[in-house]
Amino acid sequence: MVGGGQLARMSAAPAAALGIGFRVLAASESESAAQVVNDVFVGSHDSIDDLKRFAQGLDVITFDHEHVPPAYLEQLEAMGVAVRPGPSALFHAQDKLHMRRALSDAGIPCPAWAEIHDVRGVADFAEVVSWPMVLKTSRGGYDGKGVWVVNSLDEAERVIALPLPAGAAWLAEQCIDFVQELSAQVARSPHGQAVAYPIVRTVQANGICAEVIAPAPGLPNERAVQAQRIALQIAQDLNVTGMLAVELFDDGYDLYVNELAMRPHNSGHWSIEGAVTSQFENHLRAVLDLPLGSPALKAQHAVMVNILGGDVGDLYSAYKHVMARDPGLKVHLYGKAVRPGRKVGHVTVLGNDLDDLLTRGRHAADYFSGRIDE
Amino acid sequence: MVGGGQLARMSAAPAAALGIGFRVLAASESESAAQVVNDVFVGSHDSIDDLKRFAQGLDVITFDHEHVPPAYLEQLEAMGVAVRPGPSALFHAQDKLHMRRALSDAGIPCPAWAEIHDVRGVADFAEVVSWPMVLKTSRGGYDGKGVWVVNSLDEAERVIALPLPAGAAWLAEQCIDFVQELSAQVARSPHGQAVAYPIVRTVQANGICAEVIAPAPGLPNERAVQAQRIALQIAQDLNVTGMLAVELFDDGYDLYVNELAMRPHNSGHWSIEGAVTSQFENHLRAVLDLPLGSPALKAQHAVMVNILGGDVGDLYSAYKHVMARDPGLKVHLYGKAVRPGRKVGHVTVLGNDLDDLLTRGRHAADYFSGRIDE
Repeated sequence: MVGGGQLARMSAAPAAALGIGFRVLAASESESAAQVVNDVFVGSHDSIDDLKRFAQGLDVITFDHEHVPPAYLEQLEAMGVAVRPGPSALFHAQDKLHMRRALSDAGIPCPAWAEIHDVRGVADFAEVVSWPMVLKTSRGGYDGKGVWVVNSLDEAERVIALPLPAGAAWLAEQCIDFVQELSAQVARSPHGQAVAYPIVRTVQANGICAEVIAPAPGLPNERAVQAQRIALQIAQDLNVTGMLAVELFDDGYDLYVNELAMRPHNSGHWSIEGAVTSQFENHLRAVLDLPLGSPALKAQHAVMVNILGGDVGDLYSAYKHVMARDPGLKVHLYGKAVRPGRKVGHVTVLGNDLDDLLTRGRHAADYFSGRIDE
Repeated sequence: MVGGGQLARMSAAPAAALGIGFRVLAASESESAAQVVNDVFVGSHDSIDDLKRFAQGLDVITFDHEHVPPAYLEQLEAMGVAVRPGPSALFHAQDKLHMRRALSDAGIPCPAWAEIHDVRGVADFAEVVSWPMVLKTSRGGYDGKGVWVVNSLDEAERVIALPLPAGAAWLAEQCIDFVQELSAQVARSPHGQAVAYPIVRTVQANGICAEVIAPAPGLPNERAVQAQRIALQIAQDLNVTGMLAVELFDDGYDLYVNELAMRPHNSGHWSIEGAVTSQFENHLRAVLDLPLGSPALKAQHAVMVNILGGDVGDLYSAYKHVMARDPGLKVHLYGKAVRPGRKVGHVTVLGNDLDDLLTRGRHAADYFSGRIDE
């Protein structure tokens, strides 16, 4: 797995359970996954030499992020290593303009969008959609970075004057007045088997995922099935292998695709305890072309709340309190240095009483972050 | 954790989730846990020098087996490292005569037993209990080794003529005509908190655990509570820290303690998927003196079936079949070389229909072992 973050760290457990050799390409020995995985290759995902040396002896390469240049992935494939998802599929998760074109061509519902070259383009698009609108860099954004909501042509002009990441262009999108944000996750294998996880509600704060509720509360069954169908269709049309997360806006009537990720995703962390087969295990099974595991929920509800870095540098010191208060809580810490707002862990709770689960999950996350002290 | 077997391997996942530094003392780089853990110290648990170097910088030492000499553990404690369970508690799991004396003194129900010095002692004990009787070496036995069921004085004479392991003596025990074997697992922390897992049925074949059913089917609630109380009392009386497994005979009326283990135990592997907190996580939480997690079942029934080595050297080749046949199956392979009868992995299934779970679990284990081919 290329990338030594928490997604690779959490993939290590199912790799060990299944007896799958698991090597991680990490930026340093101290990166999240490198702390726990036995087979660590320290190098850069931006270096084809490092990637090639990392790939020696591997059967399959997969990813915990989308940052490897597509041309490098093609070189790895030329070496005879299976790259999953493949470079042409993954490019849709690397470039949002490319993704919008492909989804629109396939008839997948998206917010109205336009490629923007100058302020004139913004003005033209503003006649199609009303203000506010969303401006994005087509590449390089994550966790709210690279995304702006603008209310006027003046604001838009200031945004598109900002420097773009290499290879990126400006993308304008209709601002959907959503009632909730959803995530549809599917796993798909090279031989075409696919499974769809229950549709979940994701709650964002400051552009960062704050909590996830599985299944999405109050979502009519037909819209849940529609969301699963959209994700399955995207996985097939784009030839995705491994986990695909489709972030969706639900305006109460229709669904619109927001973003794609082709890897385990924050919206599926609940599945470690809450699903028969976690997203991490199904990602490994999918990229190895093994039959997929059941994505069924193991409880009526699962709630996952992210632990964001706060004022407390030592997260371990919170253990006595949160574990004594809630013996049913599941804690995952990523071994990352605490910085304000950074995702440094998460908690999951399962049960029948959703309000109770939300209270418990938020309390624990707030206590870890230092926002509350009792 | 001293020992690099599958118990250490399965402890690695909760250690990573909780962000606990986890070093393993393994006999070689290829041992089960050493294949997946980042921090491996290769050495011998029989060498005090290796143990001392392994212990450098550790806060707590615990075990995946009972083989470290007690005197060495006392030396580690003298270095200032917490040893959990402590040497005096652990000695009860290392020496069955010591265990029988302590349990009898504490009023815990045991089969009738006697220390045996010669055939005359066997004859005397035969007047107390009827034939057959059980002969055991007080030390060094496991998985049916070091245990004989004998039907006559002649047979007994031949057994006690066998060489004894160092420091061991002969122990004779009443042969209990049980209706089922049970396992009672508890976790206990240094500050005295304890939690009791549901009582499970263990099914042995040739002295090796074959399958485990949680909770034990048909066990009246009062006898289940009695089994939990016995295990909690033993944990307290012997000052156990970490997981304690108490193997019990149930003759349909009373319970009798068979063996003790002070570590995660084969009878608790179901808890990885089947309990809110697995035995591996609660062992870590207990030895670190963190509040314990809920041991509650997450499904109506959990069934665990061991995969014993058979004719098939490559277990991975079974994956396509067993995973396609049963998407709800959870597979754990230990990365151990396949030898006939050796525990090389296990499968777990959760659900509401116990007969269905048993059929599915046994089928998968048999397929891995090569006993069936479809």
